[in-house]
Amino acid sequence: MSSTTAGQVIRCKAAVAWEAGKPLVIEEVEVAPPQAMEVRLKILFTSLCHTDVYFWEAKGQTPLFPRIFGHEAGGIVESIGEGVTDLKPGDHVLPVFTGECKECRHCKSEESNMCDLLRINTDRGVMLNDGKSRFSINGQPIYHFVGTSTFSEYTVLHVGSVAKINPAAPLDKVCVLSCGISTGLGATLNVAKPKKGSTVAVFGLGAVGLAAAEGARIAGASRIIGVDLNAKRFDEAKKFGVTEFVNPKDHEKPVHEVLAEMTNGGVDRSIECTGSINAMISAFECVHDGWGVAVLVGVPNKDDAFKTHPMNLLNERTIKGTFFGNYKPRSDLPSVVEKYMNKELELEKFITHEVSFSEINKAFEYMLRGEGLRCIIRMDA
Amino acid sequence: MSSTTAGQVIRCKAAVAWEAGKPLVIEEVEVAPPQAMEVRLKILFTSLCHTDVYFWEAKGQTPLFPRIFGHEAGGIVESIGEGVTDLKPGDHVLPVFTGECKECRHCKSEESNMCDLLRINTDRGVMLNDGKSRFSINGQPIYHFVGTSTFSEYTVLHVGSVAKINPAAPLDKVCVLSCGISTGLGATLNVAKPKKGSTVAVFGLGAVGLAAAEGARIAGASRIIGVDLNAKRFDEAKKFGVTEFVNPKDHEKPVHEVLAEMTNGGVDRSIECTGSINAMISAFECVHDGWGVAVLVGVPNKDDAFKTHPMNLLNERTIKGTFFGNYKPRSDLPSVVEKYMNKELELEKFITHEVSFSEINKAFEYMLRGEGLRCIIRMDA
Repeated sequence: MSSTTAGQVIRCKAAVAWEAGKPLVIEEVEVAPPQAMEVRLKILFTSLCHTDVYFWEAKGQTPLFPRIFGHEAGGIVESIGEGVTDLKPGDHVLPVFTGECKECRHCKSEESNMCDLLRINTDRGVMLNDGKSRFSINGQPIYHFVGTSTFSEYTVLHVGSVAKINPAAPLDKVCVLSCGISTGLGATLNVAKPKKGSTVAVFGLGAVGLAAAEGARIAGASRIIGVDLNAKRFDEAKKFGVTEFVNPKDHEKPVHEVLAEMTNGGVDRSIECTGSINAMISAFECVHDGWGVAVLVGVPNKDDAFKTHPMNLLNERTIKGTFFGNYKPRSDLPSVVEKYMNKELELEKFITHEVSFSEINKAFEYMLRGEGLRCIIRMDA
Repeated sequence: MSSTTAGQVIRCKAAVAWEAGKPLVIEEVEVAPPQAMEVRLKILFTSLCHTDVYFWEAKGQTPLFPRIFGHEAGGIVESIGEGVTDLKPGDHVLPVFTGECKECRHCKSEESNMCDLLRINTDRGVMLNDGKSRFSINGQPIYHFVGTSTFSEYTVLHVGSVAKINPAAPLDKVCVLSCGISTGLGATLNVAKPKKGSTVAVFGLGAVGLAAAEGARIAGASRIIGVDLNAKRFDEAKKFGVTEFVNPKDHEKPVHEVLAEMTNGGVDRSIECTGSINAMISAFECVHDGWGVAVLVGVPNKDDAFKTHPMNLLNERTIKGTFFGNYKPRSDLPSVVEKYMNKELELEKFITHEVSFSEINKAFEYMLRGEGLRCIIRMDA
């Protein structure tokens, strides 16, 4: 295929969001060839994440439409642009919404994955190389989303936003590692780092929180306490190793006190996956003094303030934030795929729905209704 | 000596605080023999720390007088009580205001030094074993202070509050490791853990902050930025490896912005040694995203609130509190003494004054005037 399409404009199907909050429309789009340091991918499977929905709804945002959303996906390299040496046509890859240039201070630091060049940018709808879009319909440019735009049969990405993975890995499963699942898993395994036998609290039992619980299960935590306002989530959470449940609505006292009583003074680690400021504060205040570590994952509102008594910190508690589970996309995602391949990490249980590309709006409906965790969208159907 | 005094009441000199804020009075006191799990020490050198002055002033506190203050000291074991196996008469030791029972969850955790049994308690003026004081004058009990009361030629401590050290170490120098210097040093070496070549900010250039700077120097930090409202402290700070100074009063913009501009986005590590809530917040907000770690050492006021935008955390910053530099007193202090013995750690520069025991009130005057860092009080003079 690459021999016939490389260097050519590709006409293919894409799900275009013409307006905020309106159903996507499957259109025939033109996808320009990759420029310097870019690659063009054939997307085989994509899934839907809250972030797509958030920017599609565009509430309180400067809207950028028409746009092609999508950032969790699995695909194959169709062709490469000038200067690309790390990838070749036919490579199996995961696109990632935040990149790794391997040159900046962040990429060179062992501790950070917040690449200066390719850090997530939700406002930019064009490619870095020329400030233009690679998508168009009859000459009208269609904007990109977080450098990935995977709701298209073909899409163009900066090479730094593409992780090359084991070609034996089933793309219809590992595509969910592009974003939310890695975010939760890495928050536990890379940042909270619970010891075997420890107690972990997870705030928010959506896909990210359940991935954090899965990380705690893999790390050998003996108690994994799920905290959520939605009691319906508790049954499903058991599959992810969650051993106990706390619904803050069921208690008169603050949830951090409930957790402290359940655990003789506090949990060893907590992971906050809701983005609610109150949950963030509770997640911090529920960890044990002396050694407790709280990890913040959920994205807060602009006007929120994290507020606590400083003695809570001085009593040897730690609070850390994480972004994409502290994974460096190109360097680290291949090893996460291997965790799935060697059956350490279970991905099937995150995949609760599957639809064909033509039914992509159903995936939005499932998410808006809070049904299930991940819906895989098959591009070939 | 121990052969003649063991099991006997010892009559000796002690500096007694009869009332809040009034000069100490050297009195002849009776010191009872150590009970089960207690040891009696002959104190050779003691020094004065802000905490003594704070509880001697007793502003806004429930006063506990008459009391014998003092908690930074070096001495020799005179006799031991029943059940004590780790120490014997003649051992050289440092008394410590917070203990290590070696039995509780905190002592058994590798990460904590906040012993459940012997954690600092500033309200208790008696020994744990029988709820009574070992000091008296004509039958009137004189209260203990933080389990140490080193402003006395002899004093009784729980064995868990006594660190046995190398007998070759000069007690008139290493006595300062009982509290403040270890607190600052450990905050850097055990908690902030700056890498070689990194940039470290230290808020507050008193003895604790300078010990934190000393830790950064030992760790090989290439830039150590001192932050203090008192410009006079800057010259002395150079001896402790501080390379640059920032006085927040000299700038219109917030100090965390000043530091970010000086360091291309933020420091790698910061250590807060003032206890001011604004300094705590600045110390956190001045660390670089992606990898910055802020460590809180200073003790805040009861009504303070630590407040920041949660995105500051989510951008992969960490904030940790520490207590006594995360050193376990009995397990770890001997190795800190060895750092001095092998000339890695320089203690002489912390010792700016020396007085005889009879002049102990001069040490209070130096501290109240903010003169110097540590004043050694020689018990034999």
